[in-house]
Amino acid sequence: MRTPADNALLALLLEASGTPKPGNVDRHREYEDLRFEHFLAGAVGAGSGLRTAEAGGELGAAFEESVEGMRHQRGGNTQFGCLLDLVPLVRAAADGPLTPESVRGVCAATTVEDACGFYRAFEYVDVAVGALPSDIDLPDVGLAADATPTVRERGLTLWDVMDRSSPIDANAREWVEGFPRSFAASEGILDDDGPATERVARAFLRLLAEEPDSLVRTQHGERVAREVQESATDVGTDLDAAAALAEKYVERDINPGTTADLTAAAVFIALERGWEV
Amino acid sequence: MRTPADNALLALLLEASGTPKPGNVDRHREYEDLRFEHFLAGAVGAGSGLRTAEAGGELGAAFEESVEGMRHQRGGNTQFGCLLDLVPLVRAAADGPLTPESVRGVCAATTVEDACGFYRAFEYVDVAVGALPSDIDLPDVGLAADATPTVRERGLTLWDVMDRSSPIDANAREWVEGFPRSFAASEGILDDDGPATERVARAFLRLLAEEPDSLVRTQHGERVAREVQESATDVGTDLDAAAALAEKYVERDINPGTTADLTAAAVFIALERGWEV
Repeated sequence: MRTPADNALLALLLEASGTPKPGNVDRHREYEDLRFEHFLAGAVGAGSGLRTAEAGGELGAAFEESVEGMRHQRGGNTQFGCLLDLVPLVRAAADGPLTPESVRGVCAATTVEDACGFYRAFEYVDVAVGALPSDIDLPDVGLAADATPTVRERGLTLWDVMDRSSPIDANAREWVEGFPRSFAASEGILDDDGPATERVARAFLRLLAEEPDSLVRTQHGERVAREVQESATDVGTDLDAAAALAEKYVERDINPGTTADLTAAAVFIALERGWEV
Repeated sequence: MRTPADNALLALLLEASGTPKPGNVDRHREYEDLRFEHFLAGAVGAGSGLRTAEAGGELGAAFEESVEGMRHQRGGNTQFGCLLDLVPLVRAAADGPLTPESVRGVCAATTVEDACGFYRAFEYVDVAVGALPSDIDLPDVGLAADATPTVRERGLTLWDVMDRSSPIDANAREWVEGFPRSFAASEGILDDDGPATERVARAFLRLLAEEPDSLVRTQHGERVAREVQESATDVGTDLDAAAALAEKYVERDINPGTTADLTAAAVFIALERGWEV
């Protein structure tokens, strides 16, 4: 049987393969400098860190290890956000039944050292994050390892970091709220039928229609993020229409990456709940 | 860094993704009942057995574990032959420099218990193998675990089994000869350029043109196996022509599965020799 760490690796692979996922790399779509194979190698490289999370290692260190492993390919940052979501989910699944409460408990128990691991992970890849709004009082993630003295001095846990980031980042909100959108999306996958790569694409489209994507907002602003959300709402789960949308997004360099992160989390939860691929 | 077991898992994924590979599932092609996702799940499931091989566990038991893990998906036998090749390659790479001599040494050192593990692996999936010719004196693999008393009584090592199978099976021949075709094909991958999934496809095409595929011979006879080899020779490494060939093979239900196994072995060797995806 596959363990939680195995299912997290498979979730990364199924997320990358789900097609069509407008604006993102998928089984049939890629960019010149960011290819499907980079996601395969990124997922495999992350495996060791995922197994550390499963085995009960420190959460921040496990996340750092997974990101360090992920970067051994030529595509750059392939799955940073996915791993941020998957690491606590793997730990919760390894410790007992995977529920919103159990994963929220894992997140709530994180320490200052976990926060240091999170900041250190930014040493390994360039992650697209915008400047923090003035009302969010956190060290800039761009500081990476240089942020850790401040993190320790101020006694910030990883939970604190995610809690303060939650107004601007959908992954951080999942973290502090028990992954409500991911759990709901996993039910959509379990209730669906047809090939796995299409079920994943429909889960992605439903999540994209729910809320503006955090990464699109960071890269293109609120107006474009809402426009993307609306176009996904129009498409629904029509995969032909989604394929047409994919062409438009690529032209405009729109990449709803945070929605892909949530999709990976949803696939993991579905696999843990018995989805047989 | 990726370990040998990680590289074996990545080799399975890159092999499955390499496109076009006429007659086999690839990134863009699949069958109604054998889909791309089955290969992803099969590869991830095999991971534990590959790590056992890396850690120095008994080779036959590691192979059995990898096949048992592989079968947790709905596609049936996805990677039995690939794993048979990869398990000794992983062990050799974990123990020191990976060379034809080192992997041949690993294979030559296999025991009667390793042969029992090999036979037991047939319990988990249906593997397409033909009846043994009368001059090959081995228990039928269809006996699976029931063959082990005979294997022990006759003192057959896994090396013996592969050695006697080598006239009819290209994987068995690689096993006893130090993987000459796989090592040569890995050089083709390292010397090539372009996207990884295309480099893998060209490696597959070159191997297919070299010799009649064992599985095609088992399923369709010698004449068709030679015809497939000739059509691959005509195509060379022209991927457009290969895509056209893929359509013809699918119509005729021709599946050069042994060539895919050798391709996975070649990808693994290339990764161990520094191929940066």
